[in-house]
Order: sequence, then structure tokens, then C-alpha cells
Amino acid sequence: MIVVMNHNAVDHDIDNILKKLENAGFQIHLSRGVERTIIGAIGDKTRLKDLSLEAMPGVEKVVPILQPYKMASRAYKDEPTVIKVGGLTIGGDTVHVMAGPCAVESRDQLLEAAQIVKEAGATLLRGGAFKPRTSPYSFQGLEEQGLEMLAEARERTGLCIVTEVMDPRSVELVARYADILQIGTRNMQNFFLLREVARAGKPVLLKRGASATIEEWLLAAEYILAEGNRDVILCERGIRTFDDYTRNTLDLTAVPVIKYLSHLPVIVDPSHAIGKWRFVAPMSRAAIAAGADGLLVEMHPNPAEALCDGPQSLNPANFRALMQELGGFASLMGKKMGQLSC
Amino acid sequence: MIVVMNHNAVDHDIDNILKKLENAGFQIHLSRGVERTIIGAIGDKTRLKDLSLEAMPGVEKVVPILQPYKMASRAYKDEPTVIKVGGLTIGGDTVHVMAGPCAVESRDQLLEAAQIVKEAGATLLRGGAFKPRTSPYSFQGLEEQGLEMLAEARERTGLCIVTEVMDPRSVELVARYADILQIGTRNMQNFFLLREVARAGKPVLLKRGASATIEEWLLAAEYILAEGNRDVILCERGIRTFDDYTRNTLDLTAVPVIKYLSHLPVIVDPSHAIGKWRFVAPMSRAAIAAGADGLLVEMHPNPAEALCDGPQSLNPANFRALMQELGGFASLMGKKMGQLSC
Amino acid sequence: MIVVMNHNAVDHDIDNILKKLENAGFQIHLSRGVERTIIGAIGDKTRLKDLSLEAMPGVEKVVPILQPYKMASRAYKDEPTVIKVGGLTIGGDTVHVMAGPCAVESRDQLLEAAQIVKEAGATLLRGGAFKPRTSPYSFQGLEEQGLEMLAEARERTGLCIVTEVMDPRSVELVARYADILQIGTRNMQNFFLLREVARAGKPVLLKRGASATIEEWLLAAEYILAEGNRDVILCERGIRTFDDYTRNTLDLTAVPVIKYLSHLPVIVDPSHAIGKWRFVAPMSRAAIAAGADGLLVEMHPNPAEALCDGPQSLNPANFRALMQELGGFASLMGKKMGQLSC
Amino acid sequence: MIVVMNHNAVDHDIDNILKKLENAGFQIHLSRGVERTIIGAIGDKTRLKDLSLEAMPGVEKVVPILQPYKMASRAYKDEPTVIKVGGLTIGGDTVHVMAGPCAVESRDQLLEAAQIVKEAGATLLRGGAFKPRTSPYSFQGLEEQGLEMLAEARERTGLCIVTEVMDPRSVELVARYADILQIGTRNMQNFFLLREVARAGKPVLLKRGASATIEEWLLAAEYILAEGNRDVILCERGIRTFDDYTRNTLDLTAVPVIKYLSHLPVIVDPSHAIGKWRFVAPMSRAAIAAGADGLLVEMHPNPAEALCDGPQSLNPANFRALMQELGGFASLMGKKMGQLSC
Repeated sequence: MIVVMNHNAVDHDIDNILKKLENAGFQIHLSRGVERTIIGAIGDKTRLKDLSLEAMPGVEKVVPILQPYKMASRAYKDEPTVIKVGGLTIGGDTVHVMAGPCAVESRDQLLEAAQIVKEAGATLLRGGAFKPRTSPYSFQGLEEQGLEMLAEARERTGLCIVTEVMDPRSVELVARYADILQIGTRNMQNFFLLREVARAGKPVLLKRGASATIEEWLLAAEYILAEGNRDVILCERGIRTFDDYTRNTLDLTAVPVIKYLSHLPVIVDPSHAIGKWRFVAPMSRAAIAAGADGLLVEMHPNPAEALCDGPQSLNPANFRALMQELGGFASLMGKKMGQLSC
Repeated sequence: MIVVMNHNAVDHDIDNILKKLENAGFQIHLSRGVERTIIGAIGDKTRLKDLSLEAMPGVEKVVPILQPYKMASRAYKDEPTVIKVGGLTIGGDTVHVMAGPCAVESRDQLLEAAQIVKEAGATLLRGGAFKPRTSPYSFQGLEEQGLEMLAEARERTGLCIVTEVMDPRSVELVARYADILQIGTRNMQNFFLLREVARAGKPVLLKRGASATIEEWLLAAEYILAEGNRDVILCERGIRTFDDYTRNTLDLTAVPVIKYLSHLPVIVDPSHAIGKWRFVAPMSRAAIAAGADGLLVEMHPNPAEALCDGPQSLNPANFRALMQELGGFASLMGKKMGQLSC
Repeated sequence: MIVVMNHNAVDHDIDNILKKLENAGFQIHLSRGVERTIIGAIGDKTRLKDLSLEAMPGVEKVVPILQPYKMASRAYKDEPTVIKVGGLTIGGDTVHVMAGPCAVESRDQLLEAAQIVKEAGATLLRGGAFKPRTSPYSFQGLEEQGLEMLAEARERTGLCIVTEVMDPRSVELVARYADILQIGTRNMQNFFLLREVARAGKPVLLKRGASATIEEWLLAAEYILAEGNRDVILCERGIRTFDDYTRNTLDLTAVPVIKYLSHLPVIVDPSHAIGKWRFVAPMSRAAIAAGADGLLVEMHPNPAEALCDGPQSLNPANFRALMQELGGFASLMGKKMGQLSC
Repeated sequence: MIVVMNHNAVDHDIDNILKKLENAGFQIHLSRGVERTIIGAIGDKTRLKDLSLEAMPGVEKVVPILQPYKMASRAYKDEPTVIKVGGLTIGGDTVHVMAGPCAVESRDQLLEAAQIVKEAGATLLRGGAFKPRTSPYSFQGLEEQGLEMLAEARERTGLCIVTEVMDPRSVELVARYADILQIGTRNMQNFFLLREVARAGKPVLLKRGASATIEEWLLAAEYILAEGNRDVILCERGIRTFDDYTRNTLDLTAVPVIKYLSHLPVIVDPSHAIGKWRFVAPMSRAAIAAGADGLLVEMHPNPAEALCDGPQSLNPANFRALMQELGGFASLMGKKMGQLSC
């Protein structure tokens, strides 16, 4: 960390900073320049924010130098993390597609979706049993009934199940049915939920918050890693910007950035990012070309009847067409499409 | 709602839309223009999003006309809501200042802060017992011990207590101690928490999410109102933008906008919005001038020793100076500063 | 356009709106609902904003239905525009790479860059003779001397030249040397410059403004098209968001969106969007996979000595490696890499 | 500036950086830590960006320490700049209101507006003769005719004139008529225009770009100051964010921030920021309470007939009511409302 002193800071101010840093166990380098005095401090980067140095007299600003996350970083673990989910491995040189409806609406809808998804080549089934809805008047999910339908779909198709958990009180319940526990974008910084999910002993799919920086996203992953759960899959799903043509702005550059900063696998959800099915296929291809380890795509047997997010769902024909395209892109990236085995 | 058809939509497409809207109980107006056919639908605005019309063939876009919230709107209730908290009333022609440290750190720190805050003229004491921290390595709060200290501070000073609850499982606990339950910015769309808090029978302070639109914010309030709890205080605390000099961008215009759209009281938290104590006083004055019903301000007896958010905390002297300024601004707005009585 | 009246609008208010719309030549559809009266108006969409309807009593809001641009739209011209530049064609089923240094720094630097760029397979040379710099103290470009060097590089290599023009007074000068006139991101809404450039009789590369919506970008193109110049190439180069790891957020979804809304070709500049060379190659691949007609990439013979934007420039080895990858992606998209012929 | 080396940087990399910095005349402090080597460099801050250090092997990141602007800073000049415009002084302890229509539409409209504005207590008349319009089909202004009308209005009322110039070729023309030359938000980084305007010998009103950081805004001011023109008035007018209820998000905190960082006067334009007249009055009051030196407000004799921006224009009655409120707020700030004398 670098502490930049104000141009009218006095010796007493500087001494106070030095004392505080020393007491906190930091190693110090002092540079007295003509325009400014600058103090470099090296030590436990994770404790920086708690020092409140910017509140001390004479301080102009504090510039952090190292990332505040640890276990999520490449410095901590350089080789890419590969995660076992049922018989599948996520990360490494495989591209997995997780697909299915936004919400589990009925047994028929879900089993039909699962069949389509499997035949087209996806390896995981997505579907919400608990739905976070902006309006209290929207459909909120089938809850445990929905989870049972997901389990039945797995039994019939062999697809692994990824589904969202929103409430720390239902983590245990959801973990009984799901292969991967999904943390939704609105809960990326729901820290009690993160800890509870971490302890459930299942891989976690951590969606990026709609206004989270890369650093905040990795710090949310750190909450899970620090509880001892190493199986975190990151999922880019669009960030909130001024742009209003798509629902959010898909930040695909986050894919190579995460690959550079972290060892964790990263997948992309173009459906929620964009909100319009028409642009899901091109951005799915682009995600693979950018280096993503997989996709989370909404497919509904009949989007016009969907109880949730129909406008962004691919119909079966468009989904099959997309799946046929992806292999070529994966192959150019030196990867192969994941195969069912669980 | 207006459904705009594509310029190459055929009659069959239009008929399908009409049928779906009629089945859903909407009243319909059809306008066939030269360039476009446009369908107006009037009915239960809260069910719109579930229709997935944009997924139907021939539809170019769906434009909502009315706001999706109901009980939070001026149309539902025109006179301003005034909320009783202990012996205080929030809303109407009074300006209340809620002040105190970011986190409850120790009994001494809190009692000292409470004394300073009270003597300067504030009527509510803020202080976090559970702290949402971006990093898992930061101080996370004293939990129930902190709540007990808050209760003791109330007993000694008569100040009402506002404190954050982050986990649905601790709502009951926090409600035993607090006068106002605070929903933090990261939890604005934590819908299970919203419902649980609504049922606790205490007024709720609902902070705006850092990337929430005004409409989403009012819909979050609607979750609480729809559970039967009418005592919602909205709190503007800055939104996330590209601007990096302040921590967030304080959206003060939200104050008159909320006043126009809703009957709920709205206060402003300049400390978290800005992140630098130096700009808290001018923006507090501006908040009152914009019509806010109160302020939520961080004051720490010794900001440089704060375990959390020291850089944005006013010290006692600066806080007292601010309090002395506010009366004049409140008075120009036809209001008076709130007085202790609980 | 739809005019939504306030819930307490009176007949007189509605009549005034109707009168104003009729006088302006609009065809009208009136829907009197229980909660709201809604007025649909069909007519010259380009005149809407000048009517100031929202300033009239009783109006709650005005919702535009059709896009305000005309000549840039698919409705105006459905088949993709293909633009001739020297012997090249941009758009259609070809992918072109425009590459070179941020700024023309010297004759040697530019000729060396041109040679590298050509040998690696690019077809156009980029390089700024006039540089828009945030600080007045930064290198501002070699001006006409730089243009002469670009012309010499073209003569020696056969590469076409794309270079920026910033001042309406130098359009004629730049047009004497360049094959494509570039409008930079800061000038996307410099309307006098747009008109002047349109009249120069050369193809125009129109970069998206860093905070421009898709609609504003197409309206800027419309300024050029409306002057009679049909040769507009759009260039996505990142938008400004809260995210601070990359310089801007590359909005790759804009590529398929533009393809859907407009007939104009669209290319991608990952270098400026991202600001870090390390992520330029993956996002170049992703751009092609998303459907882009080409790339604008910074390559410097020696990035560490660059007078401008070195950190985002590929060095020759990395550039060659990228060029070798692109063919496969173009081919999967049913396209071929452009070949030199001018 | 601080250069942070990668954790696997070798001695050779570090030596190269040191050499480059020394050659560029920087004074150097080297700190070799266990995790990282950090190089501090002190010298001409304005040349930093041209060094392209981030492109050099082994560099992780470069952290600027000092602001890149000089003449705009408090360090350069501590006492507030007060600017003479006709017989008025802007800055210091006076609050001026600049008001009038968005565009000069006709002689009658302008003279009527000027009369209303003057009688209500404003001291400057605003009105656009050249209008930057997003669509090429919108009204573009009366050009020189409009300037003549502005001059006539000044003669009749004594109000000073502030009007926008958009094209470097018309700076001389506009400067013949205007008392203050306005640079619009879209041209904040139109560097050729900034230089030309700087040389015209008139005070400049520099609007903040809709996506400009505070630093970029001050660097744009630096372009003008560096040409020898010291009379720059900054104008906050809203930034582009995700929020869609108001046109832009008025960043009022920019007012005290600018006062802290710079000696230049700063005013606020709530009309363009918000886009809805209803919220202009509360945010005008808030601007004064935040410390602004004045306001730029749109007032139209008949907003519903305005050719431009009617929805955000106050009508005469609302404008008069606002003017009557402002005095009280100015007085609480220790200021007085400006009086006509030119």
C-alpha cells in the first residue's frame, strides 16, 4: 500500500502514520519528495481497509497495491482449478453447456426441456425452483416441488442439475437435490448465504453481481474458498450500464481477465445478460472464443408460454442450431465439448 | 402496456397476441398503421412481465405504460406517510438526523458516540452489529453483543436505534433490540430477507441498491408493503457509476423523484455515497434543500481508529458544526429539526 | 409514439394534445382507459422530439415507438452494405484487419509497422497523425508530416490507410491522404465534423462514443448518410462503465445488435476498449465469433517506446500469432480473411 | 508515480524501468519487498502517460500519485478565481443565475424570455444559436441570426449573454456577440475547439462531458488555461448512468469536490441533467446548498411550444417562484444573489 501525504502535511502527521503502520506489523519505506511525502507499506494486504488511514490528518490518499483476495488468485495457485460435478469435470480443456428453462414450471415442462437439452448435447440442466423476482407479484417458483422435478429429470436423463439457492435457511434443502448450487447475481454479496453455501459440500456457481467489479467478484469467491470449499465456478452474466438496448451489458472481457487473475473456471450466461434470445447464439460463440469454460443458456420448450424470462429463452430449434455450431469454436480453442457420464 | 409489432408481422401473429391478452383478462385497443401495428392492453399491470409476449412471433417490443408497483405509489395513497418510531415521527414536516459509527466496536466507543450525537441534536443512533464487508478478512461486527450495547445506549440517551439486519435467521433477534430495521444496499433485492423483515413489526429503513433504478427500489419497498408493513423509510445512498473520485455517485435527484412518485419518506446517507468525510457536510445541506426527510450520517469519536469506514466518518467537531447548519436549511424548507422524546 | 396522460388529466388537456398532433400531421388513435388515457400517434418519427409534448399539461410521459433513425435502418435497406476502399470491400463475407500504431511517431517507426502489419496479413494500416489526448501536455501528433508518412507507407506496402480527423478545418487535408476517414469516440457527436467528413467523398469509420447508446450511434451515422455519403463503417470500441479493470467495457453484443438493426458494416477495436494488450487477442477472436466485419488493432514495433497507448499495443510477435488464429474463426463464420489488392 | 512490478519480474526488468525513468528525468525510490518490488518516481507528472511503462516486461501496474492537471489545481493557485463578465463577477461570494430558452427560436420569443428572466432576478441570458442535436432531423438553431437576437436582448435588458459554440470555424463569430462562450457537454474533449475558444479572449463556460470523470474535466479546463485564458467557469450538468428516470444523473457532489481540487468557479445546470422541469427547482436549491457559484436554468415563455427541450424548461411562473426561494439559500451559504450592472 502507498500512503500519499497532502502537500501541507507536517512531520507530526507523518510520524503518526508511521507509528500506526508499524504497530499493525507493516514494513515501511519512506520517500520524502519535494512535492509530496509518500509512504510505502508492505504487510498483510487483507487488513488494509481496517486501518482507516484516510481518516488521519495529512493523508491525501491511500493507494492499494496488491489485490485484497488471496486464495482466488493465481499467485496462490497457478494451475487452473478443475471441478468434479457428478462424472463431469468443469474447467480445463472441456466446454460444458448448462441449459434449461428460467423456472421449473411443471413436471411436463421440465422433463420435456431436459430431453431436448440432453439430445442437443448439453450436460447440465438448469432450472429455478426458487426465483428472485423484481416484483412481489411475479411467479416466485415451485420451491421443493420444483427441486423434486429437477431430481427426477436427472434420473431420467443423466444430466447434472444446477439450481439457485436464495435463502440461507434453504441451503440444506437445495443441496439435497442439486449437483451445483447457484448464487444469483443479486446475492453475490449476501455474505451469510455465501458462507452457508460454502459449507454445503457442493460446487458453487457464483454469478457476478450486476454492479460488481472483478475484484469484488473475486472477493465474494474468497468468502467461499475461505470456508474450505474449493469448488467455485464463476459466471459472467452482464453488468449494469447506461446502455438500454440489451438488459445488461455482457462483459465478455471478464473471461480472459478472470483467467489471468485467478485459477477458477469461468462460464458465461448470455441469456440473462442480454435479455433477447436473438443475440444469445452469437454471444455464446463469442464466449467460447474468449476462452470461457462453458455456458449457461436458457432454453424453453415454448418460450411464448414461459412464466419467466420467455423473451430471452431459445426455443428448441434455435438451441439445437447453436449446439451444432459450438463444437467448431471449442475445437479452435483446443478444447472439446463436454460429454454426459453422470 | 403497448405491444409494437414488427414491420413484417402477419395477421396470424397479431391474432395470437390478441388471444393471449384477452385470455389474461386485458382490455385491448388495436391500431393498424402503415408502418406498424400497435396493440394497447389495459389490465393488471403487475402481471405483465409473466406474459413473455416478447417471445412471440412478430413482436418487436413491449412497452410498459404504468409503473409495476402499486402500494408504494402516489396513486394508491396521496398523502405523505408519517412513521412513528418510539416517540418520534419520521416524514411530514420534520427533519431527523440518524448518526453514529459505521460499526459498534466496543461499549465505550458506542456510549461516547451516542452522547456526542445526542448533544449535537440527532435523534437516532446508528451503528452496525452485523457488518456486510466486501472482504472476508475485514471486521464483521460484534453481533448480539453489539445489539446489547445499542440497547444500553438507547437507555442512557433516549436516542432511537437503527441497525442493519443481513440474515433472515437473525431478524427476530435484531428486532428485539432495534427501533428501525435497516436493509443494506447489498440486500435491497434479497427478497426472503425483505419478507422476513416486513413481518417483524418494526419500521424498515430500505437502502437503495447501488445499481437499482428508482422503479426497482420502489418494487423492493412493495415487497415489504405487500406483507402488511406500511412503515418503510427509503434511503438514498449513492449509485455505482463510472465516476471514481467519490465512492459512489450520490443521486440527490432521487429525493424529489421519490416524493413525486411515492408517499413514503426518504432520507439520505451522504457518508456511504461519497466515502470521504470532507464532502459529507455540503451534501447533507444539499439533501435537506432537495427535500429529504432526514439524514443518516457516520460520526465516530475518533475516525482514525475506526474499524470500518473511518475515512467517511465525521469527527465530533465536524459533526457538531454540521448540526448547527442544518436548522436554517430545514426552516427554509418549511420544516423543523426533529426533537428527542423517546 | 404513445402519449400517456396523467391519471388526473382533464378533457381539455387531452384535446390540446390531439390538436397539436393533428397540426403536425400525425394520424391518431385514442384509447380512454379506466386508469389512463393513452394517445397513439403515427407519422414522421423524425419530428417527435421537437414537439415538446411532455411539457404540456396532463402528460405523464411520451413513449417513442419507432427508431428515430431512418437511412441507417434495416427497414430502409435490408441487404448489408458493402463498402469499397481502394481495391478492398468491407462488409459482406470478408473479415479485414486494420492495424498499426496508435500514433505516427516517425517515418522509420511507421514504415516498420506497415511492413509487419502487411506481412502478418492485415489489409489496412492505422496510425494517428492528429491525436486527441486527454491532457494538453501529451504528444499531440505529427499532423501533416504524419499524413505524408502514411501515404508513403501505402505506396510501399499497398495497405489502405485509415486515420483520424478531429477538426472540420482539416478534413480536406486528411482526405487527400487517407482511404478511410476515422471519427474518434470523443467526436461521435461533433455534428459539424460529421457533416464535413460526410462531404469529403471518402468512406467514414465512425467510432462509438464512450457513453453513446446504440440509438445515438446510429443517429450519428444518420448525420453522415443524410449528407449523401453511404459509406459508413461502425466501430465498437468500448463503453464507459463502473468497471475499472479494463479501460472501458467492450460491448461485443453491439455487433449482432447493429447487424440486426442496421445494414452498415461493423468492426471492433479491442485495443482502445480494453487498454491492456494481454486481452486483445482473446477479444479479437470473440469479435469475429460475434459476427464483426473486421478489427482495428494497435500494433507497435516496440510498445515500450510508444509515445501513446503502448500498454494496449501488441508487439509484432503477438500480432502475428493473433493473425494466424483469426482465419479459423472467420471460416467458421462462413467468411474469409480480406486480401490485399489496393 | 508508483510502478508495481510483477511477482516474477527479474532484475533485468527492474533495471530497464529504472533506466527509462532516469532518462526521463525522474527522481527514483526503489523498494524491494518480499512479494513485490515497487518503484516510486517523482518528476514531471504531466509526462507520465507518454512513457508507456505498462508495456514493459515485468510491470504489473502503474499507479499515478499526483493529479495530471496543474494550472487548474489548488496547489497552483489557492484563492478562488473570480471572473469578470461585463460588470458582473462570477465566483467568490455571489450566486448568479443564467436563464433562458434552450434555443433562440425567434426575436419575439427571445425578447420575451429575456424580459421575464431579468425581472425575476437573473443576470445572464442563455439561448442557443447553434444547437447540437442527436438527430440530424431536429431543429439546428438560427445561427448568426440567433446571435443578433441575443445581442439585441442584451441591449434591451442589460443581461449578459452566454451561448454555445460548436465549431472552431465559428468561434470568432460567436465571440463577437457573446459575453461567455459555452462549450457543450459533447465537446468537452473537442480539443481543437477548446484551444480556439481559449484564444478568443472571452470567459469560457465548460460543461462537463456526460461520461467525463472529474479529472478529465479538469484536464479539459487545463487545455484552456494552458493557452493563457484564465477565465474558465465549470458547469456540472449530469453524468450518464444506468438510471433512466431522469435524463442524466446530476452529480451534485462534484460541486464541493471541484471546490476542493480547484480554484475555478463551478455552476450547475439542473435542466439538462434531469430533463424534467418538475425537479429543476429542488435541485437548484440543492446546488446552492452544496456550494455552487450559480445556476444555468432553462426557462421558456411557453414550454409546450418550445422547439427544443420543452419538457425540461420552467415556465415563467415556476421560474419566478424558484428565484424567490434562492436568496434564502444563498444567504445561509454566506453569499448574495448577483445583481445586474452590465
